[in-house]
Amino acid sequence: MYVRNRWYVAALSEELTDRPLGRVMMDEPVVLYRLADGTPVALEDRCLHRQAPLSLGWVEGDHLRCCYHGLLFDRDGGCIEVPGQTAIPPNDGIGRYEVREQQGFIFVWMGEEGRSEATDPYDFPWGDKEGWRGLYAQFHAKCNWQLLVDNLLDVSHIAYAHRTTIGASGVADGARTKTERDGEKVVVTRWMFDIDPAPTHVAATGYNGKVDRWQRVEFTPPGFIWLKVGIAKAGSGAEKGETEGILLDRHTLHVITPESDGTCHYFWSTAHAATSVTPEQEKMIYDQSVLAFKEDLVILEGQQTRRDSDRPTIDINADAGAAQARLVLDRLMQVEPARN
Amino acid sequence: MYVRNRWYVAALSEELTDRPLGRVMMDEPVVLYRLADGTPVALEDRCLHRQAPLSLGWVEGDHLRCCYHGLLFDRDGGCIEVPGQTAIPPNDGIGRYEVREQQGFIFVWMGEEGRSEATDPYDFPWGDKEGWRGLYAQFHAKCNWQLLVDNLLDVSHIAYAHRTTIGASGVADGARTKTERDGEKVVVTRWMFDIDPAPTHVAATGYNGKVDRWQRVEFTPPGFIWLKVGIAKAGSGAEKGETEGILLDRHTLHVITPESDGTCHYFWSTAHAATSVTPEQEKMIYDQSVLAFKEDLVILEGQQTRRDSDRPTIDINADAGAAQARLVLDRLMQVEPARN
Amino acid sequence: MYVRNRWYVAALSEELTDRPLGRVMMDEPVVLYRLADGTPVALEDRCLHRQAPLSLGWVEGDHLRCCYHGLLFDRDGGCIEVPGQTAIPPNDGIGRYEVREQQGFIFVWMGEEGRSEATDPYDFPWGDKEGWRGLYAQFHAKCNWQLLVDNLLDVSHIAYAHRTTIGASGVADGARTKTERDGEKVVVTRWMFDIDPAPTHVAATGYNGKVDRWQRVEFTPPGFIWLKVGIAKAGSGAEKGETEGILLDRHTLHVITPESDGTCHYFWSTAHAATSVTPEQEKMIYDQSVLAFKEDLVILEGQQTRRDSDRPTIDINADAGAAQARLVLDRLMQVEPARN
Repeated sequence: MYVRNRWYVAALSEELTDRPLGRVMMDEPVVLYRLADGTPVALEDRCLHRQAPLSLGWVEGDHLRCCYHGLLFDRDGGCIEVPGQTAIPPNDGIGRYEVREQQGFIFVWMGEEGRSEATDPYDFPWGDKEGWRGLYAQFHAKCNWQLLVDNLLDVSHIAYAHRTTIGASGVADGARTKTERDGEKVVVTRWMFDIDPAPTHVAATGYNGKVDRWQRVEFTPPGFIWLKVGIAKAGSGAEKGETEGILLDRHTLHVITPESDGTCHYFWSTAHAATSVTPEQEKMIYDQSVLAFKEDLVILEGQQTRRDSDRPTIDINADAGAAQARLVLDRLMQVEPARN
Repeated sequence: MYVRNRWYVAALSEELTDRPLGRVMMDEPVVLYRLADGTPVALEDRCLHRQAPLSLGWVEGDHLRCCYHGLLFDRDGGCIEVPGQTAIPPNDGIGRYEVREQQGFIFVWMGEEGRSEATDPYDFPWGDKEGWRGLYAQFHAKCNWQLLVDNLLDVSHIAYAHRTTIGASGVADGARTKTERDGEKVVVTRWMFDIDPAPTHVAATGYNGKVDRWQRVEFTPPGFIWLKVGIAKAGSGAEKGETEGILLDRHTLHVITPESDGTCHYFWSTAHAATSVTPEQEKMIYDQSVLAFKEDLVILEGQQTRRDSDRPTIDINADAGAAQARLVLDRLMQVEPARN
Repeated sequence: MYVRNRWYVAALSEELTDRPLGRVMMDEPVVLYRLADGTPVALEDRCLHRQAPLSLGWVEGDHLRCCYHGLLFDRDGGCIEVPGQTAIPPNDGIGRYEVREQQGFIFVWMGEEGRSEATDPYDFPWGDKEGWRGLYAQFHAKCNWQLLVDNLLDVSHIAYAHRTTIGASGVADGARTKTERDGEKVVVTRWMFDIDPAPTHVAATGYNGKVDRWQRVEFTPPGFIWLKVGIAKAGSGAEKGETEGILLDRHTLHVITPESDGTCHYFWSTAHAATSVTPEQEKMIYDQSVLAFKEDLVILEGQQTRRDSDRPTIDINADAGAAQARLVLDRLMQVEPARN
């Protein structure tokens, strides 16, 4: 089950260079490439002639050439050249997707034609904000996309799944947690006071005293989770807006795009004020984040293997955010067009 | 099809240390761990909360911690802690299996509750017998478990499948063979007189003259095959109880535990009087046995690929033991509870 | 869907030495071996006893020994020895296939009994022709066999798929093409005048001036494609039979044998007058041909992943040969026995 009438991240801007890129989204093969002026384009990744993947071909100016018999397609999916003949057989071209590029991501409209104007691609201003630095990464996960949404909405898992990196014993217990619903959005806010810092944070900041820590998680369907996280010296009043004791303050966006029922794409960006960390700290944060995702991956793929079980499960308090997000998504999937 | 109301070997004692061990048995995910005092415990390998494999977690004293959101389970599968909250939602816990450890093996009861007392785990006294040495190994095979039962009950295959290790030309032909049925047990006894020794035996004993060789195979359902095998100098009267000419005398237990319809676990132990072989001979015997199993594996996995064929087959005299074992198992599977 | 009543290439002559060779053809497991005098034999690759693959066994004189319990089969698939017993249980033996060896290929009859005499194995006289040199290769492809037939009948793909090896820009456009049907055969003839030579051809001949190039493709069902290809100096009159300016002149046979619905075997031979190229040129031609096949493989396997799509496709002029071949094959498959 997917929510189709949305803008989905198909790739990072930095992934799309001078060669076509094939990516399956919601079971549909999509090929992305850039026009001569850099504008991104997305077409059906299947030649009109004999179904060869167009992502195996190459870009010629604004057009995409099939690698097999050389049919040439324009940016709208129209077939404009068939080698060896002048007339082109009547055809409706290959599928074409609307595309937007912003803030380091390539967005593709996977829904019904003519409905894309009603919604905007997700806005994450931190990646290219003046004076800020954005880092990006792309992963693939062998699990249903909703398991990853659940994962990101219950950040109490950091205390266990990531105890050797970004976790700390105080993250799960005793957090002051609030879960709110704002239309389609779900917001979970957590404050932890006077707790031990996480190993990654000690390594990044050099500070190993007690800290106050915050996590604000904002879910926007179908699969955008914005985290505003940070730590300050314990008791320095960060929860009241004091900035003096702040050690780390970051904005991170996690993006999930379904590939198939049992697999998904995962895109990630983290941003910080350019002067707030050194290049060494930045590299450490990036490496540790990649490591943390790999810790998640083992668990998520393990969950996926047990997903068809009909054994009973329980819900816990920390599920409040994920449960709200599931409600939002369930409702959206019910109003989807029939082909889902 | 499985025979559930039995004790099954889930692991070797030496496999279970300070970390949980996940193992699928008869399509059920099982996690094994040791309590602080070393007692082995087996639970369902699936968290009550979001179905993460508990074998990815860790042991805390007598309890097992989920790697994901940190739920804690006691030795009976009861959930005794949910991080971030004091009340635990009403629940029946996760599945719990009865466990016994003896003679180097961890046994798990895979059958109906309350029926385990009626049967005992398989008794193989040689592994930890005073003055004896037991060696152990664990393998995984991509074939139905009954193909491996067949394999072990027809040891005439040693002459062909293992001709470069423990086989010898005289093993298949001219053996004096007897097949007996004793309740659920099937016993095949074979004596071969004045035959060439196997390559492994020459290497282990240094004796390359003619030998008398014996194989006593005792099958106990569902998947225990005890082999008493040995060689003596030809004509030294071993068949009449003379011990003077004995060159090798071993007890070996082969254990098969179904993982799924098309895969199984294979456990193995071999034992000999501690003074009867040198460490070098012992190592050679172990290595050659591992090698022999790998020779079997190629054949078994080949059989598995042809198993759905409806082509006719024939039975031969050497099948007598395997055929009896199939009859025993067929009858046991008929009286199994309906879920099989 | 297969066309069974035909001779199929099961192996290259050079593949079949002193060990049995297992090969699945049209979903049937076949084992090939040579008798003491070198005559090739093909049997069902499945022991009569417990279905072990006989290709894991070994050859004893004219017979094939099963690796498992040592049953011995003669060249007709009859079971002539069961170790450990003198009487052989009544049986019809294992399946036996008619075999012919000629011109470097081992042919097996995959059709109905008694109908093999009505047809001959494909005749490719160039491989062992006096004064000629034949090179051979064998590949495996994860695509339906008909995709490979299509591929070889539309050689315009050389201009794109093989543009870095045997392709050249002039191959697809402006060729003088003729497609003819001769009973079950389909012949496509293409002449290209005054075009750039392909990179492989420049490397092999040292000539980088304009060339005239010809391709004669002759399809014989079910999967034999004979290519007669060459280049001559542009304007030297090769199309009128002048031989003076000929730079390359080759005969190549491409052979496709279905393994399963989604996989196939691909055999290949190329031949040239022994004195026409040096050993270095020969090696280069061979290596480049292997490289070109690997270029095809990526495309074919990509097509296979999109084969179940119900999206519309178009036909182009260059399909004329492949379309004729599909018509021939469709008709042959309609008159096949019911088991297809």
